Order: sequence, then structure tokens, then C-alpha cells
Amino acid sequence: MKRRLRLGMVGGGEGAFIGAVHRIASRIDRFELVAGALSSDPERAAASAAAVGIARSYADFREMATTEAAREDGIDAVAIVTPNHLHAPVATAFLDAGIHVICDKPLAVSLDEGESLARLAREKGLVFAVTYTYSGYPLVRHARALVQDGALGDVRLVNVEYAQDWLSLPVEHQSNRQAAWRTDPALAGPAGCLGDIGTHAYQLAEFVTGMRPSEVSAEVATFVPNRPIDDHVQAMLRYANGARGMLWASQVAAGEENALRLRVYGTKAGLSFDQQNPNELWITPLGGASERITRGRLQGKEALHATRVPAGHPEGYLEAFAQLYTDAASQIAAAIDADSPPPESEWLTTVDDGVAGLRFIDAVLTSSRANAAWVKIE
Amino acid sequence: MKRRLRLGMVGGGEGAFIGAVHRIASRIDRFELVAGALSSDPERAAASAAAVGIARSYADFREMATTEAAREDGIDAVAIVTPNHLHAPVATAFLDAGIHVICDKPLAVSLDEGESLARLAREKGLVFAVTYTYSGYPLVRHARALVQDGALGDVRLVNVEYAQDWLSLPVEHQSNRQAAWRTDPALAGPAGCLGDIGTHAYQLAEFVTGMRPSEVSAEVATFVPNRPIDDHVQAMLRYANGARGMLWASQVAAGEENALRLRVYGTKAGLSFDQQNPNELWITPLGGASERITRGRLQGKEALHATRVPAGHPEGYLEAFAQLYTDAASQIAAAIDADSPPPESEWLTTVDDGVAGLRFIDAVLTSSRANAAWVKIE
Amino acid sequence: MKRRLRLGMVGGGEGAFIGAVHRIASRIDRFELVAGALSSDPERAAASAAAVGIARSYADFREMATTEAAREDGIDAVAIVTPNHLHAPVATAFLDAGIHVICDKPLAVSLDEGESLARLAREKGLVFAVTYTYSGYPLVRHARALVQDGALGDVRLVNVEYAQDWLSLPVEHQSNRQAAWRTDPALAGPAGCLGDIGTHAYQLAEFVTGMRPSEVSAEVATFVPNRPIDDHVQAMLRYANGARGMLWASQVAAGEENALRLRVYGTKAGLSFDQQNPNELWITPLGGASERITRGRLQGKEALHATRVPAGHPEGYLEAFAQLYTDAASQIAAAIDADSPPPESEWLTTVDDGVAGLRFIDAVLTSSRANAAWVKIE
Amino acid sequence: MKRRLRLGMVGGGEGAFIGAVHRIASRIDRFELVAGALSSDPERAAASAAAVGIARSYADFREMATTEAAREDGIDAVAIVTPNHLHAPVATAFLDAGIHVICDKPLAVSLDEGESLARLAREKGLVFAVTYTYSGYPLVRHARALVQDGALGDVRLVNVEYAQDWLSLPVEHQSNRQAAWRTDPALAGPAGCLGDIGTHAYQLAEFVTGMRPSEVSAEVATFVPNRPIDDHVQAMLRYANGARGMLWASQVAAGEENALRLRVYGTKAGLSFDQQNPNELWITPLGGASERITRGRLQGKEALHATRVPAGHPEGYLEAFAQLYTDAASQIAAAIDADSPPPESEWLTTVDDGVAGLRFIDAVLTSSRANAAWVKIE
Repeated sequence: MKRRLRLGMVGGGEGAFIGAVHRIASRIDRFELVAGALSSDPERAAASAAAVGIARSYADFREMATTEAAREDGIDAVAIVTPNHLHAPVATAFLDAGIHVICDKPLAVSLDEGESLARLAREKGLVFAVTYTYSGYPLVRHARALVQDGALGDVRLVNVEYAQDWLSLPVEHQSNRQAAWRTDPALAGPAGCLGDIGTHAYQLAEFVTGMRPSEVSAEVATFVPNRPIDDHVQAMLRYANGARGMLWASQVAAGEENALRLRVYGTKAGLSFDQQNPNELWITPLGGASERITRGRLQGKEALHATRVPAGHPEGYLEAFAQLYTDAASQIAAAIDADSPPPESEWLTTVDDGVAGLRFIDAVLTSSRANAAWVKIE
Repeated sequence: MKRRLRLGMVGGGEGAFIGAVHRIASRIDRFELVAGALSSDPERAAASAAAVGIARSYADFREMATTEAAREDGIDAVAIVTPNHLHAPVATAFLDAGIHVICDKPLAVSLDEGESLARLAREKGLVFAVTYTYSGYPLVRHARALVQDGALGDVRLVNVEYAQDWLSLPVEHQSNRQAAWRTDPALAGPAGCLGDIGTHAYQLAEFVTGMRPSEVSAEVATFVPNRPIDDHVQAMLRYANGARGMLWASQVAAGEENALRLRVYGTKAGLSFDQQNPNELWITPLGGASERITRGRLQGKEALHATRVPAGHPEGYLEAFAQLYTDAASQIAAAIDADSPPPESEWLTTVDDGVAGLRFIDAVLTSSRANAAWVKIE
Repeated sequence: MKRRLRLGMVGGGEGAFIGAVHRIASRIDRFELVAGALSSDPERAAASAAAVGIARSYADFREMATTEAAREDGIDAVAIVTPNHLHAPVATAFLDAGIHVICDKPLAVSLDEGESLARLAREKGLVFAVTYTYSGYPLVRHARALVQDGALGDVRLVNVEYAQDWLSLPVEHQSNRQAAWRTDPALAGPAGCLGDIGTHAYQLAEFVTGMRPSEVSAEVATFVPNRPIDDHVQAMLRYANGARGMLWASQVAAGEENALRLRVYGTKAGLSFDQQNPNELWITPLGGASERITRGRLQGKEALHATRVPAGHPEGYLEAFAQLYTDAASQIAAAIDADSPPPESEWLTTVDDGVAGLRFIDAVLTSSRANAAWVKIE
Repeated sequence: MKRRLRLGMVGGGEGAFIGAVHRIASRIDRFELVAGALSSDPERAAASAAAVGIARSYADFREMATTEAAREDGIDAVAIVTPNHLHAPVATAFLDAGIHVICDKPLAVSLDEGESLARLAREKGLVFAVTYTYSGYPLVRHARALVQDGALGDVRLVNVEYAQDWLSLPVEHQSNRQAAWRTDPALAGPAGCLGDIGTHAYQLAEFVTGMRPSEVSAEVATFVPNRPIDDHVQAMLRYANGARGMLWASQVAAGEENALRLRVYGTKAGLSFDQQNPNELWITPLGGASERITRGRLQGKEALHATRVPAGHPEGYLEAFAQLYTDAASQIAAAIDADSPPPESEWLTTVDDGVAGLRFIDAVLTSSRANAAWVKIE
């Protein structure tokens, strides 16, 4: 049997959407959640831990890191699901304690912070996964394999968008805690919509195409009056090979729920994926009939590796998330067993992808301040 | 915290699709799998138990029932995921031992068997859930609530279908173990496609409409030569209120994966649900514009009760299945805490639904033998 | 140039849906409408003729037949768009006058009437087209060619349905003239929904599969109180080769507009067509990825023959209808030019298809009166 | 009766896609095509005229203009369907002769040319329609009415795209005459994809929202080597009210047929339209369930004015085109009857819309040459 791993969690107290997601996702395949510092408020931390059945509750994440590191049965990894501004200090504490890290995105609130984390993880030889959820979908991985195998020919066009409507009104002033921290630069960092979902869109495009844009012309916008952070971003992209791209992310697109859609067009075919319907992928050959590929019919290694139920039995967001945990578990178990840094993962998104997301944020904000001038992406 | 419950499993050794589904589904919310008799072959049972991380492995389900019943930390419930012909003996053993039961469908291989189980469960005051998976979808429950609330007006038409293609060829002779037992009347009972998926279709229609047909005219068919069981069924239905219905289930419908679709039309509106796209439900008012309701926008109690992630984050089959386990857990915990029979559940499908499915199988087979004559359904 | 032909019309005065459709459809490619007896009320006939720009208006269809036959520039063909009970007398008058006929369906109000018309057309050597509109869609013709070419393998299952909601309420009493005659057996014949749309469904299935059922078990129903004709029909079908089928047609399916859908499953693949989205056809290979074929990408003779605009420019109902007129024009022009009976048409639906529709009506009504007993279809 | 009008045509010889479209579209409701100068090659002009049944064929458009103007039964209007570089000279000749004009888009090959035409049309008091096809769809007009009525609230976001794949390869060198002239700046003008379909996208967005962007940041690109004109354009838009927009048009998007899609999001709701599925329009209320509006259910004046067949009977591209002709006919007949300039049309797109398209082309090309700097649109 692939053995179960012990997980700790920082952040994700009751009512936090993403904490609950991480808890279920970690449990689906290989982790047991055994310790947590779920809130910086000690009483709330304890109550949350009890409510979700966590045995060892800590009021302070630093104490948790050192205590768990010292235990025989201490956690193998920590999941960081706090507001963005805490990602770096929490991750640093656990890396310093020699504990593997699974961190939500964006990785940090500045590029400097992110690069420091990447360096530290490398020095310590620890796994540092960043949960770019959508790269956990089997069909996203299949799409990437198709592009790598040349099924599209040379990529010419990339069109990615991520549209939501939940910030169309000033809900941050209406006791929506999610909205409150995500629209507060002190907690979320300088990027709002851009950091929250724009980075997902950017990463998905890069993950599938294997291409990073060389330049971006972008502008962020804020539609809700008095909101101190962006709730909308639009960008044009240039790639080194001459390909062009567009990226659009919005949290004020009325009627859109969580509409992350990627289209890629090459010289031979196009592909299209919509995460709201993640059990299908469209391949559109040049001049030909469209093909609708379904998850359950996949015969490649993605199918064997990353799906749980057969054709026609839809999988969803939680299974994609679980896949990230499972891939992280493989790396962590390998590192522990070999007492060495983990091997390269074919699929797992790591701190390096997190840094790439911060570079994109930086470039977009720089471009936007310069009236959408083209800015190079390193 | 809602405490975790201890689960045992009978059947579902390695390679068994539905065993793996039950294991994940049980774990998502409230159960821990701690004991199992995963195979009637002792070595295979032990190997399977080790592979999936079950602590206590038994080679014999009767021994498991008595042993677990005697332990302080014995299982609270057993999941039965064997081929159909074992459902009744296994369930009987655990009921006799005072252990709650969660059983796959069809409940048994004869109506007599099924009625005996229902009686025994009632006598013992134990929970007996039957996993009609599709009633776990939030939008299926919402659909039922809409019909109950009169949103469709009086129901006139019911159209339900369940189409697959995986038995289009004689795969039962090509080391497909799923196909082998499901097409063998000694293991599956007298109904093939009819029992495997026809009962799902029948139950879904009844669950949503709250109406049981009074008569059926049906014929089963076998398209693959030398297959000793049906792989196709078509039926016309009559309801007491004058409504009409059609039911179609097939395992030889080329290109169909798991296409369970329900349409209901009333005097005021219709509704449509396709389990392959379970995050949406269509309401079609008479003469008006269609409305696409999504899971994540639901505001009713179904949303609060049976969904885990917000709008636009798709849930799937495993979450629907998990919901059945979670609803069973509520009943079981209530029964244990009160040391009395469980309360009525608003949602959980039970042994009585299992018996209804067996009555339908009986009526269809009787009609089919009589050249599709109308047969009353009690 | 393919020369224009002269068309007359009987029925189809102002406000008649189907008359306007025939007028536009005939004009799109090859006909000019020059004469008409648009109403049995002389004043209304003249007013309607003036309103739609018909030069020669007649108050009596028999006078029109003899007068036009005698004119040098008389009509080449007549379009019959009256209520059903007049189809036979009008067609007889024009056939007797040696004028080609294009008649709406159902062909007549009894099988006897229909067979007489078929005999008369044969004797006279005249074209007698019956406008089964949906066989005019390029993708329906392509579907037929695919089945003929064996792309599906042996056909096992046929599932056809035609659902509308416009007769859900007793609109025939609310000055809806369409509804009034279609629900009056004296004008529509003995079959309501069955004759109006059930025959379309039946013909589409036969057109595409090339298979006529050998037996039917059916029942008609009337949901709207005091309506003297059926508004719903459901049927099970058996084919000589062992294939099975279901047919469902309803005019009380709330929210459905004109939902004619055909699915055919063979040993190798399935196909699916929905006339509400007529620019796409789905092919679903056994165990494989679905293919979405679009009208504009077709490379076969159907494309060259029956489409007018390129890929991505949707065609619709009027173009399908126009195709019937254009195919009839080819037959009529060939007959005129050769002064002989027309050649066989590969595509045109004729009086023989009309008779087949009447046989189906007869069999369904017979079965329905016998409690859905199986009735042979000749 | 609304009387038929006499139409002439310049351009559109055999094999020209758009000529055939104009011919059918004009005929569907109110025009008869009676004269033409279908080719600048006299023999080809005569052969084409004969082939399509045009009575009076001219080898020279200027001769046609003066001759027809002098005839008692001369044409009421001319349809100009030549390559772009001839639009202005042909239109000028007919306007000078006092004949109403219906011209394909883009209006001309330079803004100067276009403005001259607008002035001349105004001076002469003649109808000058420009066939922005997609504004003829009933649901596009309904969408516009919804925006005007405030159904979306204040418009925040506009997202329009038009994707094709037919120029993905250098087909202009493979005897594709359409491709040959459309990629030749001497015939098409300075804008390729931008002029051919980018202007359609731009116009559709403006038509529906009633908003013209104030600034554009854009770049055109050419993907096919040695093509002397753009085959791709991407742009970001700013509106005076703070709204943002994106426009994308490409003729190298593999697998796309004619994918013109518009999405508009306001403070209260969004809307979405895809011309490849023109019988439906989606309204997506903020936080609510999506509504799918179908053409046939429309009750507003658009339904009464611009549709021909009832619910569920799909209309397509030719009917949208026909609607433009029919709206032009109303204007022309009114102008003729009153012997005065035509009244304002609520729906018809005119030379002023054509000029707006040329302004957009100018601004995009200017921006593109300046590395996508923001350029004001007058």
C-alpha cells in the first residue's frame, strides 16, 4: 500500500472556503490531517480544530512548526491556506523546520518574497507545492501532452480568460470574509483579481502550452467604487516564437460563476477547455470536424494516473485538487524514503511556478502603471 | 464536531470499480474504513485490505460480522459492494449482528429476498441505506423539491433513459471482471442491464417526481449473441393520475458513456437533468425562456446540506456518492446516540427503495415474457 | 441557367404559418409563385393573393386546375397547403389536369385516400412530392449516407422524439386558427399529434436508417380535457433485423419548442441529430471520442447539392424546405423536358413516403385501441 | 401588398460567395434581381448573368448606372458586391445616377473615400445601406433593445471575437479566389482580417451596446509567411464611461468556422450571443440562474418585424441577410413614394456605420504601427 502521510494545516478556520477544500482534497487519496493552527485567534483556532476533527491544535504557527518537527509522529507536510500576506512567513517557518510545504497561490505578496522561498526550498531540499488547482484536471494534463506531442502543430494563438461575478457589488462591506481579505491590499498583496484568478489563468495557459510569454501589455481596472484593489484585468501577450495571446480576468462579469476557459490554436489544430465542464476537452482540427474528448475515455498515462471513476461518471474540482495533493504525496514520500531532495515531478506545480506567477503580477502592474506599455517578462 | 464513524466493507477487492468508489465516497465527509472482507479468496482479501490500508481484514463476512459486533471499537456500519447475489446473505449477517448496512443496488436477486431484508431491518431498528447514487446530486434533490412545490404544475410526462455502450461487444469473455459478473445470472440475478442501470433510471424518475407508475409495458432484449442476460430494456409507463412515461436503458448504445437523463413535463413547466453534467438543471416554462439553474447558485436547503464548493466549481459523481454516505452517517449517528431506530430521513434512499426497484424488475420481466403486455406495479 | 418554374398554391391564406413557409421556400432557388386559390372564401382568397403578390387568384381549386392546365404559361406545379382533409381532393384535381404536385404532410386523412393518390400519380406519370421538411437538411442526408455506407455498423437502436408545447392549453378555443383545425378530426383526420408531428418523427427515422419497423406497440393520449383528438403518442418499435426503437411525440411537453431529435446506434457507432440545431451532427464511435460534424465542413455530394453558404454560416428550416422544392424542381423540369415520368430521385420524399406515413398512423391507432398490442406494419 | 422592388447587382459573378448570398437574401422578401454587371470581363459578366437568370447584363457598371436610371422600369437599387477597392467608384456612379445603394462592407479602402460616399449619399437624399449582416439577426436586435432598456444595468465590459481558420494556410496561392482578393491590399485595401471580419466584430459590439469606444490599443499580425496583409488582430478598448473591452479577430484560428461571439456585462446582468447558434441568446443575471432566450419565443417588435418561422424552427444567416434587404426595401420604397430622402431607420445599418468601421480600421492600424499605443477613436 502507498502509505498515508500526516498533514498539518495553517489557516483555514471555519467558514474559510479554501480551507475546507484543502481538507477534503488531502483526504481523498493519501493524507490524514492531524495538526493545525487554523486561526491566529487561539480560541477560534481550537474551536475550528475541534469542529473539523484535528487532534493537535496550535495557536501559533511557529510553535507548530518546531513542535511537529520534534515529534516522532509529527506532520510530514504542512498546507498553507492563510491570506496571501502570511504565505511567506509561514512557509519559511516550516521549511526552516524541515517540513515539506503545500501552499495556496499566489505564492507571496511580492516577487522578492517568492524568490526567497524558492531559494530556501532548494537549499533545504524540500518539496514545495503550489496549488494551481486547474493543473490537476486529467484533461488539462492531457491537453498539455497533446501540445507537447505536436498535435496542434506550432502554437500561434493563446486565449485565456477567467470570469466571475462575485465581486460585482461591494460585498467586502457586507460581512463576506472571503471578499474582505481578498480586496484588502494589506492581506492580499498589491494584486486583487489579478492575483486571485489572473494568476490561475496565466498558469493554466503556460502549463498547457509549455510557453511563457515574453512581453505583456496590460491594464488593471477597479469597477466597484472605493475598492482599493483591482477587480478586473485585461492583457495582450507576445511570445518569443511570434505567437500572440489575450488574457482576461474579471470578478465583475455579471452572471459568470468561475469561468476559466483556455483556447490554444496551432498550425494544425486548436483545443478548448472550460473548467466548469472539466470532463470534456475539444480538439478542433484545421478545416475538420471537432472532436469532443472525455475524461473517462482517455487511454494515456493521465487516465491511469489521475482519474478515479470511469467514463461518464463526472469528476470535479475536488478531484483535481486531490490530484495535486496526491502528486505532492508521491514527491514527499520519495524524499522521505530516500532522505534526499525529491525527484523532478512531471506534473506537480511548485514554488517555481509560484514565482512565475509573481513575475506576471509584477509585469502586469508595471505595464498598467505605464498606460499598458509593453513590459518584458523575464 | 460531527464525529467520524467506523466503516467495514464486504466485497470491493482490488480492481473492483464500485469498491473504490465507496471507499473514497465514505471518506470524503464522515467515515473511516477500518475493517473488511474484500474477497472470498483469503489471500486476495488480505492483499486487497493491505493495498487500500484497511487495518482488520477478514476472509469471511460472517466472522467479520460477529467479531466486529463484539469489539468495543467495532464498525458502526458495513458497506456491501459484492456482486448482487451476495447482497442478501451479507446484509442478513450484519443486520443479525446489529450492524447498520449500506448496500449497493440492486438490493437483491429476487423480490422475496429483498422483502425479507426490509422486514429484518425494520425488526432490528437498523439503518439500511441503498446507494442509489444519483439521488445524492444536489440538483436532483432540488428538482424533487421543485416538483413537490408545484413548480411544474401537474406532472403529465416522464421520460427517463440510461444509455451506456460498454457491453456492446462480448467483453465478458475478454477478462473484463466487471462485465463477467454483471452478465452472469448466477451472480447478477435475472436482470442484466435492467438491474444494473434500469433500476437507477426507474428510481431517479420516482425520486424526482414522487410518483410511482401503476403499470408497465416493457420488453428486454439481448443484442450480444450468447449473452445469457438482457443488455437492453425499453418500457412504456402509465401513472395513476393519467401521466405517461417512457423508460429506456441500454448497455449497447454505441458512444454513450453513462447517459442517465431525466425529463419531466408538467402543466406549467418541464425540467431536464443529465447526470453527465450534474452541475446544471434546466427548467423550461410553458411557452417561455429556458432557465439553467446551477448547483452553486442554489439558495435552498439542498445547497446548504449537500454541496461542498461554491458556484462554478464543479462537483461530480464522487460527491453525490459521498452525500449518500453522509446522510447515512447522520441516521446512524442518531440511532446510536438515541439507542433506538433512526428517524425518517428526508433524502436517504433505503431498503424500501431497494424493494421498489426489485418490484420494477419483476414487473418488467413479467411484461417482457408476455410480449410486452401491461403489468401492474404494486 | 436552370430555368425558373411556375408554381400555384392551394390554401395558405394570410396568417397560415405553413403557406408563408412554402412561399419563401419555393422562391429561394427555382420557383415563381404565379397563381393561387388561397382560401375557399373568394374575398379572402383575392385579398390574400394580392397581399402576397400572386398574379392569378382563383376562388375554386378545381377551376384553377383546369384553367391553369389550359394556359400556355400555366403553372408547372401546385403546392397544396390546406388542412389535411383537402389534400386528396385537391391533389386529385391537379393530377387529373396533368399538373405536378407538391403536398404538405400527412398526405391524406385515410390510408385508402393516400393509396389512391399514389396510384393516380403513377398512372399520370407526374411528380408528387410530399414535404417531409426535415429530410431536406444537408446533415440529415449526410446521416443517411453514413448509415448506408456502414459507418454505424448494423443498426441496433432507433430513438426518435418530437416534442412541442404549443397545445398544452386549450388554445384551439382561443382564436388560434392553427390549433383549431389541427385539433378538429373533421379537418385534420383521425390523428392529431400523431399525424402532425408523429409522422415527421417516423419518416425521419426511416429516411436516415433506411429501415421500416415491422411492428409497433403504441398508445395515443389526450391530455387537454375535451380535446377530440390525441395530443401525445408513445410507441415501441421492432425491426425485422432485431433492432429496437422508441418513438415519442407530444404537443404538451412544457417548454419544448420543436424538438425533433433522432438517435441511431449501431454496432460500431451512434449518431445524433437535433433539428433545432441543424448545422451539426454527432457521431459517437463505440468506446471513442465524439465527433461533431458541421454542415459547412461537409465534403460529400450533400454539401455540393444541398447547402448555400459556407462553414459557420448557419442554415435553417427555410433552407431545408427550399431544398425539397429545389429537388422537386429538378424532377419536374426533367419530366417536362423529357415529356415522360420523372426519374427516380435520390432524395425527394414522394407520395410513397406519404402512404408510409398513413400506414404508420393506421398501425398506431389500431395498437392504441387494442391496449398497445403489437401491430404489424406492412 | 408591399410591392416588389427591382434590384441591380455589381460584382458577384459565378463562384463568388457573397454574390450568391445577396441574390438569395434579396429575393426572400421583397426584391427581384433584374440587371447586373457581374464581372469586369464582358464574357464572364454575360455568362454569369445568364447562369443566375438576370435579364439585363452590362459589361460596365457606369453604363449600367446611366442606362438603368434612364429606363422607365430601371432598377430601384443596386447591390455592390465587388472586391473592396471598387465599392467607392461603383457606389459613386449609382448615387450620381440617383439610384439607391446597398453595399457590402468594409465600405471603402480608406476613410477619405468612405466620408466622401457619406457626403454624397446625404446630398442626393438616397438610401445607402451597408450590409453588416449580423445586425439582421432578430436576437441581436433584441439584445440591443435589452441594453437600451437597461436590462444589463450600466455596461462595464465588452468582449467580442470573430474567429475563422480558412486563411491558416496560404490558400491564396491555391486558386481560392476569395482568398486571393481578400489578401491583396490592391483589392482589399490596407486591412485584411481587420477589414474583413474585425469590422463586423466592432460593429456588432457597437450595435448591441450603443457605445463606441473612445480609445484602442491594438496590434495586427500576419501568421502566414509572405502574406502582404494582416490575418489576425487583437485589441483592448476603453469607453468614455470607464467600461473596458477586448476585441479579437483571426483567420488563422484552427478549427473555428465563423465564430463571431459577443459578450456584454453590466452592473445587473450579462448577455452572450454566438452567431453560429443564432436562435438563442443568453442572459446571465448577477448571481442568478442563466436564461436562454430563443428567437421563436420573442414577443417584442423584433419578433413581429424580423422573423419568419415559429419557435423551434431555426432561422439562419440567409434570413439575417434578408432582413437587411427588407429593411432597406422599406426605406427605399418610402423614399420613392415620398420623392424625398428616406426616414431614419431604427435598424438599418448605413453608410455612417460604414464610415465608423473605416475609422476603427484607421485607429487600429495607427495603434499597431505605434507598438499598440492607445489611439483615440473619433
